[in-house]
Amino acid sequence: MANTKKALESVTLSRDGSSVIIIDQTLLPATLKYIKLKSDKDIYEAIKQLKVRGAPAIGICAAYGMAVLAKSIKAQTYEEFYHEFKNYRNYIGSSRPTAVNLFWALDEMEKCVTNSSDKSVAEIKKLLREEAISIHNEDIAVCKAISQFGLSLIENGDGILTHCNAGPLATSRYGTALGPLFLGKENGMNFHVFADETRPLLQGARITAFELHQAGIDVTLICDNMASIVMKEGKVNAVFVGCDRVAANGDAANKIGTSGVAILAKHYGIPFYVLGPTSTIDTECKTGDDIKIEQRDPSEIKEKFFAKPVALKEIKTYNPAFDVTDHALISGIITEYGVARPPYDSSLKEIMEKKNGRFSD
Amino acid sequence: MANTKKALESVTLSRDGSSVIIIDQTLLPATLKYIKLKSDKDIYEAIKQLKVRGAPAIGICAAYGMAVLAKSIKAQTYEEFYHEFKNYRNYIGSSRPTAVNLFWALDEMEKCVTNSSDKSVAEIKKLLREEAISIHNEDIAVCKAISQFGLSLIENGDGILTHCNAGPLATSRYGTALGPLFLGKENGMNFHVFADETRPLLQGARITAFELHQAGIDVTLICDNMASIVMKEGKVNAVFVGCDRVAANGDAANKIGTSGVAILAKHYGIPFYVLGPTSTIDTECKTGDDIKIEQRDPSEIKEKFFAKPVALKEIKTYNPAFDVTDHALISGIITEYGVARPPYDSSLKEIMEKKNGRFSD
Repeated sequence: MANTKKALESVTLSRDGSSVIIIDQTLLPATLKYIKLKSDKDIYEAIKQLKVRGAPAIGICAAYGMAVLAKSIKAQTYEEFYHEFKNYRNYIGSSRPTAVNLFWALDEMEKCVTNSSDKSVAEIKKLLREEAISIHNEDIAVCKAISQFGLSLIENGDGILTHCNAGPLATSRYGTALGPLFLGKENGMNFHVFADETRPLLQGARITAFELHQAGIDVTLICDNMASIVMKEGKVNAVFVGCDRVAANGDAANKIGTSGVAILAKHYGIPFYVLGPTSTIDTECKTGDDIKIEQRDPSEIKEKFFAKPVALKEIKTYNPAFDVTDHALISGIITEYGVARPPYDSSLKEIMEKKNGRFSD
Repeated sequence: MANTKKALESVTLSRDGSSVIIIDQTLLPATLKYIKLKSDKDIYEAIKQLKVRGAPAIGICAAYGMAVLAKSIKAQTYEEFYHEFKNYRNYIGSSRPTAVNLFWALDEMEKCVTNSSDKSVAEIKKLLREEAISIHNEDIAVCKAISQFGLSLIENGDGILTHCNAGPLATSRYGTALGPLFLGKENGMNFHVFADETRPLLQGARITAFELHQAGIDVTLICDNMASIVMKEGKVNAVFVGCDRVAANGDAANKIGTSGVAILAKHYGIPFYVLGPTSTIDTECKTGDDIKIEQRDPSEIKEKFFAKPVALKEIKTYNPAFDVTDHALISGIITEYGVARPPYDSSLKEIMEKKNGRFSD
């Protein structure tokens, strides 16, 4: 496999606009294969089978997918076109019914059509392509802004520990938690990254270590339980993690194990940063106690990835997908509108006001 | 598989003294199979291939093994007998050259012979059998004493979290860290145990969960990075771990990840106990800084147990076998002579004085 020393692009549109090109993430890390999605079935299966994964990447794939499918529609009247478009939209939407970004992207694409009943089908197809590119570019811009703010907090040569995966493959170029590292690399900086393997699904081993290595960034894979010794030995200057949902008080839900890493960082006096777009800040959610944690199947712990089961069928497991990191353990929350610092009640409010164009003073 | 609801015996001597009976631990957890070791090659291979594992269990197996082999020696004179005995001893000693308990047990057995040059071969064979039984009984007594002291620190119904494996299969009946749970079960008590799977070698999944379940003790298997959320949810009243070496100041080396669990326990206000025989206390070793940590092969993290590699061959790993838990994080060190409490410099000294029969006042 060629080492391109460049960040990988998980989703792009082909030059002629007739296919979505994705990295088949189910083949990683053994094989880096780009595949073209042309038909509705191609796109549906790619999302359903997790060939494309990561909330922003799924949204971008769905947006490009709708642009590609719209291009293929033969109908000449608006009504016929919208009817076919809607059928495609519903089919793609059924691929992962719980993926919020998927529906957000499909809605944005559909608005393009419903707001354009006065336009020709050819014009609408062009608008859809532009909208999908704009959704992608917006994500790149958000990730880049997060990366820049994150990069301002670390120095060349620093050791950075990360948990799970919030890199380019899950988003667009850069990623969130890994964004400062990719951006720094572009700027000629070097970091020493420790990637937690992140049991049970091993996103750290399979994805994070892979994409950092691919970009020529120094990465060392560790088991989750090795974070303590790596920190103790002075190898970590900062921890960068992504987030799935941030409450109004700064409590942050992220992949299981994140809260443990935060407690270790606090113990060893290492700053712990949460990086994510403002779309993950849920001001309606007062504290982390309001965040419901999904329980997952025992087979993930005992069977998945293993050549044979590592524990008996009768052994009970506890397998929460996420945990909530207490805001008191978080040194800063890095968004595309800046770095929120404690106390988060007020700093996150300011960030959201910036986003909404209302500055507090 | 029959659920015997009894602690498993990893090593025993057959009634007629002509074979060592062990549980083949390489077949766990899928198959619980007892095998008979009769020849020198049987015993050598069982130790080398980790069919028997855990320092005390290896020592007991070697002691019984030498008794079995001595029984088979046809020589009638002391010199001829000792010559053959010595050959067996050297051969068994070459099975795992770094296993301290193996050599300690072989030395004890050899002393039986060298101290008995005035005795008949038949008498020496009898002495060897008695010595091996005594080594085994001594280990049972030590484990039982540790278990009793440990049991005095917890209450019926408590939630206990443990890391790696320090149970019956690694020792003799009871074990060390798991001893209070097995002893408590015998006394009609019930605990809710959370077993860390303990990456990379998964001793928690493969052995701890197995032997607790086998004894009818309520056990829940979790990934290492789930300890934080389990503690946060109030499910853990105490942490029990084993130890490989304890320094004079109370710093304790144990399986990688133990120090992280101790930091989490401190954060959540949960007592963290280290359980081990006084033979692991190394008073010559002043602090944990003097304990050298073995680095192990990347394949353990990336390949072993997996159906296919989970990270690229080129990805670096950091794979320390152990870490050192700072004495400030340890609530008590539980030995067969009692519970040492901080400050450990003086309490461990008292424990060692008790052991050596010299009481400080």
